[in-house]
Amino acid sequence: MSVQSILAYADDHHPQFLDELKAFLGIPSISTLPDRAGDVHRAAEWLADHMRSIGLEHVQVVPTAGHPVVLADWLHAPGRPTVLVYGHYDVQPVDPLELWESDPFQPEVRDGNLYARGASDDKGPFFAHLKAIEAYLRTEGALPVNLKIICEGEEEIGSPNLDPLIYARASELAADLALISDTTILGPDQPSIVYGLRGLCYMEVEVTGPDHDLHSGQYGGAIHNPLQVLCEMIASLHDAQGRVTIPGFYDKVRPLSSEERVELARVPFEEDRLRQETGVPKSWGEAGYTIAERIGARPTLEVNGIIGGWTGPGSKTVLPARALAKISMRLVADQDPDEIDRLFTEHIRRIAPDTVRVEIRGLAHGAPALVERDVPAMEAAARAYEAGFGARPVFAREGGSIPVVATFRKALGIPTILLGLGLPDDRFHAPNEKFSLANFYRGIATIIHFHSALAGMPAE
Amino acid sequence: MSVQSILAYADDHHPQFLDELKAFLGIPSISTLPDRAGDVHRAAEWLADHMRSIGLEHVQVVPTAGHPVVLADWLHAPGRPTVLVYGHYDVQPVDPLELWESDPFQPEVRDGNLYARGASDDKGPFFAHLKAIEAYLRTEGALPVNLKIICEGEEEIGSPNLDPLIYARASELAADLALISDTTILGPDQPSIVYGLRGLCYMEVEVTGPDHDLHSGQYGGAIHNPLQVLCEMIASLHDAQGRVTIPGFYDKVRPLSSEERVELARVPFEEDRLRQETGVPKSWGEAGYTIAERIGARPTLEVNGIIGGWTGPGSKTVLPARALAKISMRLVADQDPDEIDRLFTEHIRRIAPDTVRVEIRGLAHGAPALVERDVPAMEAAARAYEAGFGARPVFAREGGSIPVVATFRKALGIPTILLGLGLPDDRFHAPNEKFSLANFYRGIATIIHFHSALAGMPAE
Repeated sequence: MSVQSILAYADDHHPQFLDELKAFLGIPSISTLPDRAGDVHRAAEWLADHMRSIGLEHVQVVPTAGHPVVLADWLHAPGRPTVLVYGHYDVQPVDPLELWESDPFQPEVRDGNLYARGASDDKGPFFAHLKAIEAYLRTEGALPVNLKIICEGEEEIGSPNLDPLIYARASELAADLALISDTTILGPDQPSIVYGLRGLCYMEVEVTGPDHDLHSGQYGGAIHNPLQVLCEMIASLHDAQGRVTIPGFYDKVRPLSSEERVELARVPFEEDRLRQETGVPKSWGEAGYTIAERIGARPTLEVNGIIGGWTGPGSKTVLPARALAKISMRLVADQDPDEIDRLFTEHIRRIAPDTVRVEIRGLAHGAPALVERDVPAMEAAARAYEAGFGARPVFAREGGSIPVVATFRKALGIPTILLGLGLPDDRFHAPNEKFSLANFYRGIATIIHFHSALAGMPAE
Repeated sequence: MSVQSILAYADDHHPQFLDELKAFLGIPSISTLPDRAGDVHRAAEWLADHMRSIGLEHVQVVPTAGHPVVLADWLHAPGRPTVLVYGHYDVQPVDPLELWESDPFQPEVRDGNLYARGASDDKGPFFAHLKAIEAYLRTEGALPVNLKIICEGEEEIGSPNLDPLIYARASELAADLALISDTTILGPDQPSIVYGLRGLCYMEVEVTGPDHDLHSGQYGGAIHNPLQVLCEMIASLHDAQGRVTIPGFYDKVRPLSSEERVELARVPFEEDRLRQETGVPKSWGEAGYTIAERIGARPTLEVNGIIGGWTGPGSKTVLPARALAKISMRLVADQDPDEIDRLFTEHIRRIAPDTVRVEIRGLAHGAPALVERDVPAMEAAARAYEAGFGARPVFAREGGSIPVVATFRKALGIPTILLGLGLPDDRFHAPNEKFSLANFYRGIATIIHFHSALAGMPAE
């Protein structure tokens, strides 16, 4: 089996790969919007058809209580390791639509980047895996490893139906390691391997005061305004040092070792880069930690959205009946999302004044994950990046959440290699999301090298 | 001139009056919505046509930089007082529309109430004046007083073009007193005369952090979230005693006299009534003041609306680029809205952290007003209520704002009689706004009595 001929096939087919990825990105598979359910299902069927067309076997679109999961495999490498590739074909909403320079579902290439919702999170990187598989099967008729695929349609809404499916099909999904491309690397020429991921606990808090909107002049001053109450509660959730004030919130946080702090300090994520990437006048955060530590290694609490009262043009003197906030916490090892949900709920109940009614709902949970750095597959990944990107990767902790990493550990007993292909400025979840075409093509090569490198090693 | 025959005409024409009011209410003259400008203009024209049809003279629809003002008069009572009747034909927006039990612009009578946006604020009460005038002119061919009318279309957006028009036409509008029905009385059988009105200073605060929405996992913890900043600033605007913390905010507030406190204590606005009218579990407000004082005699600060981030169904892990709040302050004598705008703006700039950018805009201003209680027209109003409602009115201060009262004092040098016809549960600015038909008909009778009582007295 010659890696060169496989890489050559990939190189020769870049225009075709790009056209196929554009078709995949053209399907608006926004999992959180009920009226997009048909599109989400259509994306699953498209993916299944495509998997069949490149030679994957046992392709199934598995229904769940929500959006379907696509499964497939190729298991003709006896004695070789089995790799479980995970991805997600669902995407985030696109609003505010007016900030997009091109239609989020009519992918467009500008300056070497492909712009579309889902380009980098996660359709593009996941698609690179299919193209690496295609390159092997079309040139050699075989992969150097056994391969299983699981691609879900609910990652952006907290994967509510994935864990039960993984537990129910644990033997069908049995593998030696999982492989996921849903993280970012440090820069175009600086690959990095994420070994730490934050978990998520996403809550909704609804404050109700009067049973209907009131005239602020007729009642203002004698009624505790639900928006004011919400602001007062939210303001109290951080102290002046930027720490979260919920009692017990930090109890289970595993302290950073000095070795880790040294390693993370090598990740050049500093003030200037943050300002440049985001446009903020200045960074902010928990006292005593660097920017890289705040994002990757410390738990946080974010207000993701608030709505209440009059928000249209001009003035309306309303004292609103209700106010709603979406608040999520990013968790780190060894925080438990269910326990954090309970601590948050108890705390909000404790601080809520008796002048209003408060409802608290948990919307999505995901456990944080730390991946072992000394497994053989990590070395295969490092070598693959070096071949694909021309630079040795550094090890990093990332702020995002991929809850399935914890599930793979618990349900299947396997480590996960996070072979990120996105870039930090890819605008995940934001307008003008993009995926660098260079990263798409280098990513395909890196995945080809990964399977080859892994094949030379004994199964873990 | 026999008041009985005039009252009889009104009684005989209730069905016609109701049908006409329904037609007026059917025009969605929402002044704050740019795409309703045509409807606002249509309401002005409808009103002008109606005024002509009942015998008013010099009816004009006067254009302004915004929505037009309707003027009219009847000036054939030499030696008698001149009354300037003010009203507004614009209405508030209707959202949330789903909470309305019937279409806000298809007026519907249920249980003796007429449900529609603007039913009580202010189309219904203003229309009662036209019907009282009609009753006089159709039966006697004359009014017992001289009468001028000014009806504007921008009251709900802070009357930006009214003051210049009043100053420019001060001689044309010259009168002995102004008469306005745009306040509420205490109950169906307990009329009340408002002599104190709060002013208004309506602001908008926009907090911008990053220049685009960010992924809360990728950046959360290192960026000061604009929604969190907004909550922290808003939470700090009240202290634990419910007082507004803006330096200088209370400096110009005229203290309540002990006589006024005794009078206000007679207004039975207490805990139970507040809970029943609004559905709140408990009242709230500035320590050391009763509910009636908090609403009528003390300045307040309300959050009228907040929006930012993801507010749709489910979860989206966004760290929003911007957050917007609408915040208004109700003012009492002798606070000045321009000074309060300045104090608010300076304070927000002072407390805004340097991790974000903050923009502050003034949207609407209105001065507070106190009306003299010892003018002869007050006694005429008291007698008119007694005849119309069968009960002597009490004197009250109200929380709402009618900035034109201060303008009439300054520009025309006249006092204003606030002959309220609404009820506290009329749901001004809220879904299911209604106007009691009993109050509509009793109101017409009260206005007929008022003009008659006033005519028996020398001009002020």
